[in-house]
Amino acid sequence: MQYPQNLERLFAFLRRLPGVGRRTAERYAFDLLLGWSKQEINGLIASLEALDTISCCQVCGCLKDSKECLFCSSHNRTKEQLCIVASPREVFTIEQTGEFRGVYHVISGLLSPLDGRGREEIGLDKLTARLREGVIREVIVALDSSLEGDTTALFLKEQLAHFAVTVSRLAFGIPVGSALEYVDGGTLARAFSARNTY
Amino acid sequence: MQYPQNLERLFAFLRRLPGVGRRTAERYAFDLLLGWSKQEINGLIASLEALDTISCCQVCGCLKDSKECLFCSSHNRTKEQLCIVASPREVFTIEQTGEFRGVYHVISGLLSPLDGRGREEIGLDKLTARLREGVIREVIVALDSSLEGDTTALFLKEQLAHFAVTVSRLAFGIPVGSALEYVDGGTLARAFSARNTY
Repeated sequence: MQYPQNLERLFAFLRRLPGVGRRTAERYAFDLLLGWSKQEINGLIASLEALDTISCCQVCGCLKDSKECLFCSSHNRTKEQLCIVASPREVFTIEQTGEFRGVYHVISGLLSPLDGRGREEIGLDKLTARLREGVIREVIVALDSSLEGDTTALFLKEQLAHFAVTVSRLAFGIPVGSALEYVDGGTLARAFSARNTY
Repeated sequence: MQYPQNLERLFAFLRRLPGVGRRTAERYAFDLLLGWSKQEINGLIASLEALDTISCCQVCGCLKDSKECLFCSSHNRTKEQLCIVASPREVFTIEQTGEFRGVYHVISGLLSPLDGRGREEIGLDKLTARLREGVIREVIVALDSSLEGDTTALFLKEQLAHFAVTVSRLAFGIPVGSALEYVDGGTLARAFSARNTY
């Protein structure tokens, strides 16, 4: 006995979501089928259709749903500080801290020779074009702390050496609120070498 | 800075899925937005729309996507054995074992005084109507091993006492493949009292 074919199709699509396996997909599909009203399903469908209205800003790569990018067009943000991130999602993670009031630049991924993603892939042209305008004074590299993130950060530092900008990277150290006991050796070593007088 | 409004709407819908919180909803939404092709999104939308084509059989309560119920209309299944389950989903779980070749009856949930779900709510009429046809010889109660499941199983046993049918319930005992060390006391006690000679 098989599941109804249309249910199998839904399983297959739900399994494409990150971290969703067969059993979770089944759980979601049965919840949608038995627990959701027709109105809720239509709402979900409408919000999936509305993804079309969201695009990436041609200049900075941030998400926007109206005609102009809220970051690029904002008058409350300093145009002298530029934060480089690897995905439009990370912009929102940084925004939640309220720590940065400059503008962003989303590069199209991290350098990864293993995945065949070289220097051409990360879209350096758009970044250098913005720097050539001469407004930006500081570039903050906010990339993952991973092999790819480190490689890309180093590459960006080299490429931006020709511009009259300060290039900095987010600090490494002990996560706030964590016990030393649970901090890994690599992090602890970085925290030692970057220790501060206080 | 807020997320685009249409993305927020999608978050809200995805959060209604079982076990999905804010962060998982964001993860799914960004995957849909940045990782899925237009074609894949349309496929997901089509499969959500197609949920309409799936309904519950008026007789047994199993899911069906064509006009006739594959369980009720099957000639390969014995109509003398009836398995009672609490949700159409469990039918497929049982089917996967290949252990049962009778027909099913899906009651509309378990008795739960705390949630205000009394004897009227579980739809006993349809079940007794089927039993009155006189074909069914054995009823197998396949309900959860929980307070609600136990209460409902007991209630069903009482209600079916007037019919000339054997009423049985799935066996309790040690899960196959498990170490005694990890089996809880209640299960172990049931396994002792239901011990078999071999």
